Amino acid sequence: MCLKTVNIGICGLGTVGGGTFNVLTRNTALINARSGANIQIVQVAARRINPVCDTGNVNVTEDIFAVARNPAVDVVVELIGGTTVARELVLEAIHNGKHVVTANKALIALHGNEIFEAARQKSVMVAFEAAVAGGIPIIKTLREGLGANRIEWLAGIINGTSNFILTAMEEQGRAFDDALAEAQALGYAEADPTFDVEGIDAAHKLVILASLAFGIPLQFDKVYTQGIRSLDLQDIAYARELGYRIKHLGIARQTDKGVEVRVHPTLIPNNSLVAEVDGVMNAVMVKGDAVGPTLFYGAGAGAEPTASAVVADVIDVARALNSAAEARVPYLAFSNASFNATPIIPIEEVETAYYLRMTALDKPGVLSQVASIMSDRGISIEAIIQKRPKAGENHVPLIMLTNTAVERDLMAAVSAVEDLDGIVGSVVHIRVEALDK
Amino acid sequence: MCLKTVNIGICGLGTVGGGTFNVLTRNTALINARSGANIQIVQVAARRINPVCDTGNVNVTEDIFAVARNPAVDVVVELIGGTTVARELVLEAIHNGKHVVTANKALIALHGNEIFEAARQKSVMVAFEAAVAGGIPIIKTLREGLGANRIEWLAGIINGTSNFILTAMEEQGRAFDDALAEAQALGYAEADPTFDVEGIDAAHKLVILASLAFGIPLQFDKVYTQGIRSLDLQDIAYARELGYRIKHLGIARQTDKGVEVRVHPTLIPNNSLVAEVDGVMNAVMVKGDAVGPTLFYGAGAGAEPTASAVVADVIDVARALNSAAEARVPYLAFSNASFNATPIIPIEEVETAYYLRMTALDKPGVLSQVASIMSDRGISIEAIIQKRPKAGENHVPLIMLTNTAVERDLMAAVSAVEDLDGIVGSVVHIRVEALDK
Repeated sequence: MCLKTVNIGICGLGTVGGGTFNVLTRNTALINARSGANIQIVQVAARRINPVCDTGNVNVTEDIFAVARNPAVDVVVELIGGTTVARELVLEAIHNGKHVVTANKALIALHGNEIFEAARQKSVMVAFEAAVAGGIPIIKTLREGLGANRIEWLAGIINGTSNFILTAMEEQGRAFDDALAEAQALGYAEADPTFDVEGIDAAHKLVILASLAFGIPLQFDKVYTQGIRSLDLQDIAYARELGYRIKHLGIARQTDKGVEVRVHPTLIPNNSLVAEVDGVMNAVMVKGDAVGPTLFYGAGAGAEPTASAVVADVIDVARALNSAAEARVPYLAFSNASFNATPIIPIEEVETAYYLRMTALDKPGVLSQVASIMSDRGISIEAIIQKRPKAGENHVPLIMLTNTAVERDLMAAVSAVEDLDGIVGSVVHIRVEALDK
Repeated sequence: MCLKTVNIGICGLGTVGGGTFNVLTRNTALINARSGANIQIVQVAARRINPVCDTGNVNVTEDIFAVARNPAVDVVVELIGGTTVARELVLEAIHNGKHVVTANKALIALHGNEIFEAARQKSVMVAFEAAVAGGIPIIKTLREGLGANRIEWLAGIINGTSNFILTAMEEQGRAFDDALAEAQALGYAEADPTFDVEGIDAAHKLVILASLAFGIPLQFDKVYTQGIRSLDLQDIAYARELGYRIKHLGIARQTDKGVEVRVHPTLIPNNSLVAEVDGVMNAVMVKGDAVGPTLFYGAGAGAEPTASAVVADVIDVARALNSAAEARVPYLAFSNASFNATPIIPIEEVETAYYLRMTALDKPGVLSQVASIMSDRGISIEAIIQKRPKAGENHVPLIMLTNTAVERDLMAAVSAVEDLDGIVGSVVHIRVEALDK
C-alpha cells in the first residue's frame, strides 16, 4: 500500500506543542501503521524553540499565520492558546481550506459555533479531542463510541488543578491557600489561578460535552459556574463523616424541562468510582440509555497526555482525507502489512510478584528453610503473615508476598518448598500486579 | 442534506439481537442525526421472535443465510454466537460483498485472521466493538482514541461472571459453588459455566485486545489461561489483610523479550481503581507511553449495553460507506440541521440534594425551628450531625443532608434559616449527587 502523505503545521511549541511534536516524531512508524497515512510535520511556528524538541530540519517560523497560509500544509495544529489570536488563526486556516486540530477549550466553548460554521462552508475538519479531559478520548466516546445512546447525564472531574487542591485539602488537611500554593509550585496551577479555581476552565469543557451529548449549540453564557475557592476544610471533614467526598464536578443532565449544565463543588458517595479519582487525574462518567453508567479516566493535562489526544485527532483527519478502503480504521488497529513478529512470551518466562500460601508444621526452622529456598533462587520476600496455631492443631498457615520473580524460578522454589518435611500439602500461588507503572 | 440509506440485516434475535433491534428502533432519529445516514433494519433472521421486540413490518426469516444473500442488505449483523455456523455466515456475507458487524469474541479470537483476510480481499468492513467489554468502547479507544501511543500494557476485568462471583465471595464470604449458583440464578452465568469460570471467555477477549494494542496477529493458542474455580476464600481474606483484592484479570504487556498475554486471578492493591470494580461490571486499564494510565469502565454484558456497541459499529460502517464531507463525524456529534432547541435550565430550577452547615446557638428549639422551615417548603432532612458545644462556647455546628429539592426552594429556606435568632452567620450549602441513576 502506498501511503498518502498528510502534511502538518504546528502553531505553538509550548508544553502541549512540544509534547505533540515529540509524540509525532517518536511514534512515527506506529502512527503511520495505524493511520494508513504518512504524517509529516512540515512547519512549526513558535516564538522560541522548546528545548525538549529536536526540530532538526523542520521549517521553523515565528509567524503562526505563515502556517495557515503555507500551501504545503494540509492540517494546522493550533496550540497557542487564548481566544483572540487563536480565533483569527483558526479562521484564517479554515479560509485557506486547511483542516484544523486544536486543544483550545476556551476557543471552542466561546467561538465554536462560528468556527464550525466557517469550517462547514469550506468542508474542512476541525478536531478538538484534546480540549476536554486531556488524554481521555471522551469526545470520540460521546460522538462515536456511545453514538447509539440517548445520553441521560454526564458528570466529570474535568479540572485537574481543582482536583489536586481538593485532594491535598482532604488527605493532608491543608487549607485552600496552602494547597493552591503547592499546585503552583508543582506547575499544576497558573500564577493567576482564576480560570481553574473559579471553575471557568471546567465550564469551558462542560459546555462542549453538553453540546456533544445532547445535540444543543455551544452556550457558554448559560453554564452555572462555581469554583472551589470558598470551600472550607470543615465541610470536607463533615462530608466524610456522612459517607461522602467533595469533588469539583461538571454536570450535564437531560431532564423533562431541558438540560442542566452546571459546575460546582459536589458531595458524592465515597463508594462511587469518581470519588476515588485523586490529584490531577480527570474522569468523566456518562450514563446512556442503552449502555448504562460508564466511566473514562486518565490524565487531564500535561504535555504528552494532551499530545496523545492532539495526535489522535491528526490521525482521524489523515484517515478521513483518504476515502479509499485502505484508509479505513484497520480491522486490528494496524495495517495488515504492519503486523509485527513480536513473540508472545511463554508464561514460564513472565515476571510477576507472587502471593504464596502454605500450611507449615508448628515447629522451629520451617520458616527459615522456606526463606532460604526463596533466597537461593533470588526471590525476595516482601511480607509474611504467620498466625499462631489454633488450640489442638499443630500446623499453621504461612502467607508470603514475594517481589518480582521469573515464573520458572518461582515454580521451582514452590516445588522445593512443597518437598520440605515441615510443609503440608501444596503451596497456593496467585500472581500480584501493582498496575502502577 | 439528503441522508444515504444503509440497510441492516440482523441475524439472531436473542438477548443481544433483541437489544440491538430495540436500540436501533427506539433511537432512530438520534442515530441518524449522529451518523448522517438513514439506517434501516430491512431483515431479521431468527428461529423465534424475541417477545421484547416489535418486528412490525420488518421482513423476518428463519434462515440466517438468506440475510447474507439478500441483495437489499448492506450490513449483516451477526448475533447468533458460536463459531461454526457463525463463521460460515460471516464468510458468506463477506463473499457477497456485505459489511459485517459482530459481537462474537470467540469467532474473532479463533477465526479473525481468516475473516479479516477475506474481508480485505472484498474491501468490506468487519466491526466487532461488542466482542470485548460489552458497552465500553475499548476497541475504538485502542484503535483510534489512543492511536498516538505505544501501548505499554493493558489489564482488564473482562468477564463479568467471574467478577460477580469474586465480589460475592469477598463481600459476603460465600464459597465459589454458592456464588456460582447465585450467578446462574440471576442469569449472569450459563448452565455450563466453563467458558466464564475457566477464563476462556476472558482469553478470547484478551487475545483481541493484545492484537489491537501491539500490532500482532490473533494467537489464541498462546494465551496463558487460568480461571477462578480453584480460588479459596482464605486467600481472599489474607489478600485483604495484606492490602490487596483478588480480581480475575486479563493482562497484556509489551516487554523487551516479547508480549505477555495472560488471564489469571491476580492480587491488586486495594487502592487501585480496578480494585473497586465490582459485580458484573467490566473495566480495562490501558497504559500508553504518551497518555499514561487510563481506565475505561462500564457494563460488560447484557442486552442493551452490548447493543450500544453493536449499534456504534453500525454507525461507523454507515459513515464509512459515504465518503462525502457530510458523512464525516459531525463537529458537535449531531449534524448541524439536527441541533435541537432544548433549553438550558437556570440553576434556580435545578433539583439536587444539599449539604447544609450552619452555626447554631446552644439553646433549646433552634433545631426544631430549622426543621420546620425546611418542612414548610417540602424539603426533607436525611441526616443530621449536631455536636456538643466545646467547653466555654455557646454555639455548635449543625450539619444536615437534605433530600432532593428545587434550588429556589432550598435557597428560600436557607434565607429563612439565616434570619433565625438562633443561627449565627450564613449557611454553607453544597450540592450532593448520588451519581447512581
